[in-house]
Amino acid sequence: MSSGEAAFIAALRGLVSHPAARGLADDCAVLEFGGETLIVTHDMMVEGVHWLPEQDPADVAWKLLATNLSDLAAKGAEPIGVLLGYTLTEDNARFAAGLGEALAHFAVPLLGGDTVRSPGAQTVGLTALGRATCKPVPSRSSARAGDSVWITGPVGAAMLGFEALSSGNPSADTSVYRRPVPRLAEGRALAPLVTAMMDVSDGLLLDASRLAEASGVTLALDPRAIPLPADLPNERARDALSWGDDYELLFTLPSGAVPPCRAHRIGTVLPRGDAPLLLGEAPPAGPLGFEHC
Amino acid sequence: MSSGEAAFIAALRGLVSHPAARGLADDCAVLEFGGETLIVTHDMMVEGVHWLPEQDPADVAWKLLATNLSDLAAKGAEPIGVLLGYTLTEDNARFAAGLGEALAHFAVPLLGGDTVRSPGAQTVGLTALGRATCKPVPSRSSARAGDSVWITGPVGAAMLGFEALSSGNPSADTSVYRRPVPRLAEGRALAPLVTAMMDVSDGLLLDASRLAEASGVTLALDPRAIPLPADLPNERARDALSWGDDYELLFTLPSGAVPPCRAHRIGTVLPRGDAPLLLGEAPPAGPLGFEHC
Repeated sequence: MSSGEAAFIAALRGLVSHPAARGLADDCAVLEFGGETLIVTHDMMVEGVHWLPEQDPADVAWKLLATNLSDLAAKGAEPIGVLLGYTLTEDNARFAAGLGEALAHFAVPLLGGDTVRSPGAQTVGLTALGRATCKPVPSRSSARAGDSVWITGPVGAAMLGFEALSSGNPSADTSVYRRPVPRLAEGRALAPLVTAMMDVSDGLLLDASRLAEASGVTLALDPRAIPLPADLPNERARDALSWGDDYELLFTLPSGAVPPCRAHRIGTVLPRGDAPLLLGEAPPAGPLGFEHC
Repeated sequence: MSSGEAAFIAALRGLVSHPAARGLADDCAVLEFGGETLIVTHDMMVEGVHWLPEQDPADVAWKLLATNLSDLAAKGAEPIGVLLGYTLTEDNARFAAGLGEALAHFAVPLLGGDTVRSPGAQTVGLTALGRATCKPVPSRSSARAGDSVWITGPVGAAMLGFEALSSGNPSADTSVYRRPVPRLAEGRALAPLVTAMMDVSDGLLLDASRLAEASGVTLALDPRAIPLPADLPNERARDALSWGDDYELLFTLPSGAVPPCRAHRIGTVLPRGDAPLLLGEAPPAGPLGFEHC
């Protein structure tokens, strides 16, 4: 994160007092409305930053929807609709087609939005609305010492997909990178049981350290227990831990509890020590993940 | 509107079936949630398209919030919170300051959002959430022949403000252009009474023709009755009718009904004739308003 972004986010945090904002430290806003709990998130993507300029716009649309739904998944929420913000390009038909495909796949209605002209890099944003399916709504901030740490699936497949896509390897399956699938069903099943939960978008180590910081604990991860793709070369194992875009759910459970869906136990929550995160015996060396700036 | 934008919006409309989307033809999505009605809108602004590059970012932040709140005003909704989408620039402090000022002024909480890096023109988006204060929630599509047509205030002041700002006239008051004030209280007071309502963002004539098209009627406006700023030169009167950014509310009332707030009667609703809009005796010549592309 650049110092400019850090300062801006600090300034925004200074503007926030409503509890629904969760101090701008969670994946979503969580708002009581009409006797129910509304979950709202907004994520943006920029050409050349979040996708390769030569990528199919249909995949960009899919990913924009999927990443926002992944934030809802981390709250155990059921999606109820989305609004699109879109800057026009020369050819917008593929984006519309991909958005339609993704909306149908996830059974989420498009409710509104805005399209604008822009002289610069294409910028797209999506607001996703969801309905909480249990209370309290999971947060990043309530992991407790003694809990176990879990993840719903492997990390690193999106990295391999991105590398195959950017090197133009036609035989590789790049769909995990291009068309991630948010863990909506898993999120709903887990929400009543977890002590803390978030989606892994920016790299397992970075997101785990964020969960640890928010909860005031230390997460001790066992590197041998972290699931990796079967085709990951051994020498890339460390890279896989700090690459993002896999959109698995990272969560903590009370000791002894068993998740109701496929998941891998990857560590233990300790009382807060010197570092928020241990990988094996020591804090991880090197980058923790993908900072958006 | 470019043919590209028209085709893209047509493609999006083809994706829409949920009644909350109102066919993407209204200012906001209108969604039943819990036991209440949620109003959601998302508008974007792009540097060099929606604001002058030399403008104070604090004013950009104000306007971004105000234009989205104006959409809520057109539904008679009470704002409950906003999410920000923001691409970082060299200096973000003035934007944060202006956003804080505007949020405090309108007593609206910041609930979340996203900040991203971008190599291009700065692009900002805002999602505003509101609570409907009456049902049915006003739409653009239910004006009826025989209704009277009203507007809450003059059009053209933003045009004069923009021109003073772009010509660098230091003595002019440009605040109407830089810091519009959405008609939230008026919208709430009017919502139970109107047959149709929208905010005037893209020019009175264009927005009036949109309301007429959505309602399947003709709006006959009396050019002498349309309120204009006191300092508007006579020769600019026609320009004022097709300039946007004034954010007054345009609405229709049953014949004989009197608005509960300051407003000007500017015309009558007729059964649909050849044209959606008459200005005096004939359809207006020349541009109707500001098409976003």
